[in-house]
Amino acid sequence: MLDYKLVEACAEVIRFGSFEKAARALGLTQSAISQRIKLMEERLGQPVLVRAKPIVPTVAGQRLLAHYQSVRLLEQDLGSELPEVRAEGEFGQVTLAVNADSLATWFVDVPKLLFEKLGVLVHLVVDDESLNHHSLQEGNVLGAVSLRDTPIQGCRVRPLGSMRYFMVVSPEFQERYFKDGVNADALRACPAVNFSEHDELQNQFLHQYFGLTPGEFPAHTVPSSQGFVTLAEQGVAYAVVEQHQAEEGLRTGRLVRPCPFEIDRPLYWHHKTINSRLLDQVNDIVLSEARRHLPEIPQ
Amino acid sequence: MLDYKLVEACAEVIRFGSFEKAARALGLTQSAISQRIKLMEERLGQPVLVRAKPIVPTVAGQRLLAHYQSVRLLEQDLGSELPEVRAEGEFGQVTLAVNADSLATWFVDVPKLLFEKLGVLVHLVVDDESLNHHSLQEGNVLGAVSLRDTPIQGCRVRPLGSMRYFMVVSPEFQERYFKDGVNADALRACPAVNFSEHDELQNQFLHQYFGLTPGEFPAHTVPSSQGFVTLAEQGVAYAVVEQHQAEEGLRTGRLVRPCPFEIDRPLYWHHKTINSRLLDQVNDIVLSEARRHLPEIPQ
Repeated sequence: MLDYKLVEACAEVIRFGSFEKAARALGLTQSAISQRIKLMEERLGQPVLVRAKPIVPTVAGQRLLAHYQSVRLLEQDLGSELPEVRAEGEFGQVTLAVNADSLATWFVDVPKLLFEKLGVLVHLVVDDESLNHHSLQEGNVLGAVSLRDTPIQGCRVRPLGSMRYFMVVSPEFQERYFKDGVNADALRACPAVNFSEHDELQNQFLHQYFGLTPGEFPAHTVPSSQGFVTLAEQGVAYAVVEQHQAEEGLRTGRLVRPCPFEIDRPLYWHHKTINSRLLDQVNDIVLSEARRHLPEIPQ
Repeated sequence: MLDYKLVEACAEVIRFGSFEKAARALGLTQSAISQRIKLMEERLGQPVLVRAKPIVPTVAGQRLLAHYQSVRLLEQDLGSELPEVRAEGEFGQVTLAVNADSLATWFVDVPKLLFEKLGVLVHLVVDDESLNHHSLQEGNVLGAVSLRDTPIQGCRVRPLGSMRYFMVVSPEFQERYFKDGVNADALRACPAVNFSEHDELQNQFLHQYFGLTPGEFPAHTVPSSQGFVTLAEQGVAYAVVEQHQAEEGLRTGRLVRPCPFEIDRPLYWHHKTINSRLLDQVNDIVLSEARRHLPEIPQ
């Protein structure tokens, strides 16, 4: 059988991206951690880490991490059947990837429900929708919210619902830049706000309805779901936002919709196919929260 | 003189971490981009990129990027004196690094002011306080909010003020877990919420006042300033938050302070020492917003 002390050391170094932090988390010295990783690498006959800043796993390291997390999950199942195998006061933990728009809207109660119903700590990784798939593939997370509907190896995919996006601006911004309506020329001359350099949604919206490609329209970048909407409310930019995020601004008149166009983005839940009661319960909670808030994906 | 077409190609690939995105942004084919980078590397006699996922700059690449951004900044100064050198409808751009807590609080009007007063697009990089320093060192940003007061080469450092942090919980959480007050035993048995794996603030607070080290206390992880406070309000965790973020919750009674301890964190503004009028104005806006919201750093 594998030496799980070694596996754990590798997994924690990968998770924290740092020997120092992994050592602290495991209550070991850094040299003990290094020693364990060296031993693991000797047994595997290949490196598990690239010693860069931050530390990144090799393909072998990723496999090892995925395996470690599966074992931890099974241990948590066992812990709920045999409470005595759990250290006193110890909580289980699940790591999930979610896009920022979901976390700011329909996903907001998921951590609360996971903790209250299942007693687990929730570790969230927030990434761009298209990248979450990547975290799952690397074995860092148990489940991920993603835009892609193609399952990846070792995972099952289920529909969550659609997120609806449209353009909002402050009334003053509309008056200043969109007096003659929203068109490609107007959009070349006033700033958008991107969530990130990888803001595919904004790009798709401007391309689909106005034929603009990235680089053709000026944009601020504010990587915060809250800050993003704030910029539109302040009249500093137009923003393409998820409908729940615009609700209050539209209700109070701080935001208006300068054009009727919409984009619906189907979201999917990808989760490991480990046979675990805990994972089943996690899936149930995520799927039922999605049903409660999101319209169904059209056929 | 350097061939700035080549420099620009390198800088954009580094900025986007992707050949494809840089090509789109510059309106070039991917093979044209590759060609330019190859030429640049031949002239320098060394690689500027590590072709990993995502793409990362070599030390030479970082130098090149820093130089490129300085030149762009000087061009923006020129553009405000000679508007005709600017392409029509083109805005200048400044890239700044800011920690999430600042962006959610005192920094919230900075993008608005930069755009309205200076007409520049604001590109924000959001990172942990201690890491911003790193972005600056790598030459990716013009200015950064940081916890460190030691200047780095080519930069000047100025005090911004103190951010004050304290612990908040929902009244129900207090009743359930802190009935006998907040102490190390109580904190080992109920969950905190960390902003990230690198949440040094939470760690410092729990270590300074309760002697706990990371790994000794259970914690959720929710990398969103908004989501973080929400978890405390939902009664799912205790949180150590910046005072502005707790204001509304404390006023409405959704949050209470279970213990009187506080941590003050002095924040510093690091900016390039390029002689640029635009940069001077950026500094003035950032410093004056900090003065408006943050208490002075005690001597």
